[in-house]
Amino acid sequence: MDIISSCAEQLTPAGELHHLLTLDGLDRNTVAALLDRATAYLRPAGARPARDGALQDTTVANLFFEPSTRTRASFELAAKRMSADVLNLDVNTSSRIKGESILDTIYTLQAMQVDVFVIRDASAGVPAYIANHVQPHVSVLNAGEANLSHPTQGLLDILTIQQHNPDFESLAVTIIGDIAHSRVACSAVQGLRIMGTRDIRLVAPPGFEPDMANFPGTQFTHDIDSAIEGSDVVMALRVQKERIKEKSGLITNEQYLLKYGLTAERVRLAKPDAIVMHPGPMNRNVEITSEVADGAQSVIERQVTNGLAVRMAVLAAITESRKK
Amino acid sequence: MDIISSCAEQLTPAGELHHLLTLDGLDRNTVAALLDRATAYLRPAGARPARDGALQDTTVANLFFEPSTRTRASFELAAKRMSADVLNLDVNTSSRIKGESILDTIYTLQAMQVDVFVIRDASAGVPAYIANHVQPHVSVLNAGEANLSHPTQGLLDILTIQQHNPDFESLAVTIIGDIAHSRVACSAVQGLRIMGTRDIRLVAPPGFEPDMANFPGTQFTHDIDSAIEGSDVVMALRVQKERIKEKSGLITNEQYLLKYGLTAERVRLAKPDAIVMHPGPMNRNVEITSEVADGAQSVIERQVTNGLAVRMAVLAAITESRKK
Amino acid sequence: MDIISSCAEQLTPAGELHHLLTLDGLDRNTVAALLDRATAYLRPAGARPARDGALQDTTVANLFFEPSTRTRASFELAAKRMSADVLNLDVNTSSRIKGESILDTIYTLQAMQVDVFVIRDASAGVPAYIANHVQPHVSVLNAGEANLSHPTQGLLDILTIQQHNPDFESLAVTIIGDIAHSRVACSAVQGLRIMGTRDIRLVAPPGFEPDMANFPGTQFTHDIDSAIEGSDVVMALRVQKERIKEKSGLITNEQYLLKYGLTAERVRLAKPDAIVMHPGPMNRNVEITSEVADGAQSVIERQVTNGLAVRMAVLAAITESRKK
Repeated sequence: MDIISSCAEQLTPAGELHHLLTLDGLDRNTVAALLDRATAYLRPAGARPARDGALQDTTVANLFFEPSTRTRASFELAAKRMSADVLNLDVNTSSRIKGESILDTIYTLQAMQVDVFVIRDASAGVPAYIANHVQPHVSVLNAGEANLSHPTQGLLDILTIQQHNPDFESLAVTIIGDIAHSRVACSAVQGLRIMGTRDIRLVAPPGFEPDMANFPGTQFTHDIDSAIEGSDVVMALRVQKERIKEKSGLITNEQYLLKYGLTAERVRLAKPDAIVMHPGPMNRNVEITSEVADGAQSVIERQVTNGLAVRMAVLAAITESRKK
Repeated sequence: MDIISSCAEQLTPAGELHHLLTLDGLDRNTVAALLDRATAYLRPAGARPARDGALQDTTVANLFFEPSTRTRASFELAAKRMSADVLNLDVNTSSRIKGESILDTIYTLQAMQVDVFVIRDASAGVPAYIANHVQPHVSVLNAGEANLSHPTQGLLDILTIQQHNPDFESLAVTIIGDIAHSRVACSAVQGLRIMGTRDIRLVAPPGFEPDMANFPGTQFTHDIDSAIEGSDVVMALRVQKERIKEKSGLITNEQYLLKYGLTAERVRLAKPDAIVMHPGPMNRNVEITSEVADGAQSVIERQVTNGLAVRMAVLAAITESRKK
Repeated sequence: MDIISSCAEQLTPAGELHHLLTLDGLDRNTVAALLDRATAYLRPAGARPARDGALQDTTVANLFFEPSTRTRASFELAAKRMSADVLNLDVNTSSRIKGESILDTIYTLQAMQVDVFVIRDASAGVPAYIANHVQPHVSVLNAGEANLSHPTQGLLDILTIQQHNPDFESLAVTIIGDIAHSRVACSAVQGLRIMGTRDIRLVAPPGFEPDMANFPGTQFTHDIDSAIEGSDVVMALRVQKERIKEKSGLITNEQYLLKYGLTAERVRLAKPDAIVMHPGPMNRNVEITSEVADGAQSVIERQVTNGLAVRMAVLAAITESRKK
């Protein structure tokens, strides 16, 4: 498969967003405009959700080749609140059984006038590969790609941080967990660097050190306490239990929590008003204690709310560019 | 888990329905008002279905932790005909695999501005537990809880009986089957008692006698024929084959039918105009013969139609109370 | 089960389409009118899809007892673009597990005011059996029935051929593959014969010769090359690998391709402007080479587009007849 290695192909010649495959290479104006759009879709809890007719007569297909509740639900609600028709395809149980190639599935849906494909896949390069093959008016949104990229997650993380402190250049951000296998970390770091953050600290257990070539402009350490010290933002990643525990020797939940978990004690090392983030779903009392997850500094639910707004914003942006 | 043991928590301070967790403790006016609302949503077969814009901009999530066709379909169509956005989540195949707690799943969806959760779960206390933790503007509807409660089923059963004879005080109602493990029986009995029915007869095979503390105001017997005699309403419950047959020694379908099945001969023991009910799905020729299920006295399909109307009514009622 | 053996039952007394169970026995005017309706729903790629309010307040249930992505998606989008409410039921995982009879499932949904059932089932006779039992205002659409019938596929194939050359009487059409087990072949042949095509050539590997009583008015040969020679239309069927390879002795993909695959070389035996068709999903380089599938003569994606338009047309037609 061809893999889009830069972001060039996801923009129109006029520089507008046509696909969203990666944050890598987007400029600050593009990202800031998406965050502004998303902000306009936010509503207080209990209020009616924001609605927008921008995707009237547009068909969005959710193709999740990996199971997902939250991201699929978020994209589905985003599309419906933008007035799109939504088609959910659980691809595991149908075409792939029949051995059809992924491109033939896409071409088939495209021939049914599907306009937007939301793709989650465990293999690297699939969203870009599809984007390279669809018709010019069709858009592809990456909803999670291997351990490489999860751009709407990156955008919602940046939006959540901006709500805390929009002065990205001044921020210290610490990300803790299996950095090497985390598409969440990749996209968060890309987003932060676009916005100008210079102090990005990565922490992982032994055996999970990331390839630093993939994380330019960051510092790595095994020492979680020193990393958190003075941070404005502390983000815990989800532990993939099967993988991380055996390799790191931190077999039990208690061992992991002791060495790399986000505890109230550790959060106190950060700035007093620091925010605590997690992409979900959480393993409570493994990578984060319930005390921290439910504490006053946690913005974990706000991340979810921002995620829906960001996805509405991305749908609006690509629809505008497609209609030009 | 905390379990709501009274119905107090499901009402607003003004006594309006905010959640629907159980019929237990609802007063007759509340139930009668729901039945009136439901009746207003009934249409003749072949007519356009009733529509109501009351749930415009409201998002209803169906979370079924047990498989279900009919109840899920009924809630889905009820929500759509009330103009809600509907999100179906097959929770078995996604988050629970990932080990997320049920509350975190709820909080996540709540952060996406889901307003109503329709919950089916095999564990006792789950709907009430969730209701105790959601935001004030969010409602929880119990769509089947362990062997304890299935309140919309209870309401549809009461509505079906009322259509036959609204003089609940005068009725004799017989319920036959595995009473001990039946949430349908629980909710039907609660509903009947609220409406004033005094002659409620329960029949179960040996080994399946219910704890009568859970069924106050009813009489139990093993003698199906004497129980049916003179009844206005005869309700057969679904046999859970694996469970009931082995324990009762009624191993074959024929044996069960002979001893506890609803046959035409037995129905003739009831009043001449008695109605025959079954919550579905039926095991034909096990707990009920096809002759009875499809006979003139059967109201089994009317129960389904009433079920959809009842669910629309409940959605309307909680939406009104949420908007105040 | 009773099986509708003629098409009489799928028409109203006035001869209008009430169910769509089979193309067998439909007259040319009825088919031509459906193709005209479908044509009116076609739009260029990238344009807004056609919309029609004809199914406002109508509920369409997709009951797929066999897995399917493309046909289910096509019916779902067709129904949504006609303004229907759509209910997708994955029947494998719920009622059938519980042992409910298929008719009871249908009666239950009918009692919820479902108006149109779209049925795919591996057993012969199921759609007609259901059609014989639903209420007079309810319609049944066959979305694939055993190896017997797939009438909307037949219609889309006829529409695709008509776009190429509307002079059906003059056409030579060759269909290649496991004819004996192909509902696609059955419905295509029925459709072609209704439209007047006289030169229909069937090709199958040894061991897969069809019962010619089921394919009146066609010629059978094992000789693929002579069959293709001079054809206007060449249609490759999907290989059911498990079945066809063992029995035919063509164990490997290469062996099958060599003997019965549609290669560029073989396509050159057809008329220079011949079209190449495949119902999908394709086994590339088994029954068709990628060169042919993606070549200039391929109309495979156009078939998909036509399929959605045909399904909208069928929904419109049955809705008109139901409202009279």
